[in-house]
Amino acid sequence: MTERRGILVVVSGFAGAGKGTIMKKLVSEYDRYALSISMTTRSPRPEEVDGREYFFISKEQFEQNIKDGLLIEHALYCDNYYGTPRRYVEQQLDAGKDVILEIEIQGALQIKKRFPEALLLFVTPPSAEELQRRLIGRGTETPEVIAKRMRRAGEESEGIEQYDYIVINDDADRATEETHRIIQCAKNAPLRNNDFINLIRNQLKALAKGE
Amino acid sequence: MTERRGILVVVSGFAGAGKGTIMKKLVSEYDRYALSISMTTRSPRPEEVDGREYFFISKEQFEQNIKDGLLIEHALYCDNYYGTPRRYVEQQLDAGKDVILEIEIQGALQIKKRFPEALLLFVTPPSAEELQRRLIGRGTETPEVIAKRMRRAGEESEGIEQYDYIVINDDADRATEETHRIIQCAKNAPLRNNDFINLIRNQLKALAKGE
Repeated sequence: MTERRGILVVVSGFAGAGKGTIMKKLVSEYDRYALSISMTTRSPRPEEVDGREYFFISKEQFEQNIKDGLLIEHALYCDNYYGTPRRYVEQQLDAGKDVILEIEIQGALQIKKRFPEALLLFVTPPSAEELQRRLIGRGTETPEVIAKRMRRAGEESEGIEQYDYIVINDDADRATEETHRIIQCAKNAPLRNNDFINLIRNQLKALAKGE
Repeated sequence: MTERRGILVVVSGFAGAGKGTIMKKLVSEYDRYALSISMTTRSPRPEEVDGREYFFISKEQFEQNIKDGLLIEHALYCDNYYGTPRRYVEQQLDAGKDVILEIEIQGALQIKKRFPEALLLFVTPPSAEELQRRLIGRGTETPEVIAKRMRRAGEESEGIEQYDYIVINDDADRATEETHRIIQCAKNAPLRNNDFINLIRNQLKALAKGE
């Protein structure tokens, strides 16, 4: 098929499922992906760099961006805004890149409503025990935080059916390749081929009339 | 992932789109597919062999099969019945094979209703002109038959959105490989992973309770 506009790919998943690793691998191994960077009003953590993990802006600027229609989705968590700037996404899609956004279900469903052709992926570990092991293994979280994350994962698991595909992250390399294949195969869905379908319908009508 | 039950794959498409070629290639190149053979009450053509192209049976036998629930779908075209025997399909699915059925939209939608996890593929040539060229190129059809097929393709094109994926058959090898990838990727849809999703939900609940 000829080169064409990219698609929007939303990646969600439990904290500790390894979605960040898969996204970084996708971008480094295949040059057809672009990673969208979110804006937030929360304070940067010591290791975070403005424009790399997030664009860090003030609450006033963020609310002005919402008013100006500069975000394709946004959500409020724990008194902080998070959102996806429209301009970078549109530029990359126009350039034929598939743009990957990491957002939670609230934002993911906003995206699906506004861009029905967007693809929603949910990354999960192979088991809940494995998720717990990974969170403990990080060594950075207190038992209370881990318990809270596990409860949150339980809540998030209620939304899995809203996603188009799940990726079971048992091995980062395998899961990255699978994610790549899923994204590319999803381009064969009819809703991502409206132009082609309308074209062939019109051609068939014209030929049937003997034009 | 561990080996598991296969999925049902319905292939439809315009006459002349090359779906038969793709299906034969799939079965010969990958050993995870099984081709379902339909039953029909129409008479065999000179080159057709009972049990290869179709199982040819009488109208009385066919109607008895319907009554006995031995078909997973059936349809009536031009006074002849066509249907898919249940037993072979179930055996192959249980053995972990993906079972491919070639049926028209009427049967395809029956399958989707009864087996929501079935995958519906629509094979199309890259353009209507190409379809016409292929039908003329066969050299076996009169201009009237070709015109009729083109009109029929126009009608069938109205149903494309009912399918999960389209395959544009510009080259049989490329399209076969793409079809294989689509079928395997489709296994990552949530509706084909109900067991896994329920399992991880229950595990998360148990761990959150500290069990």
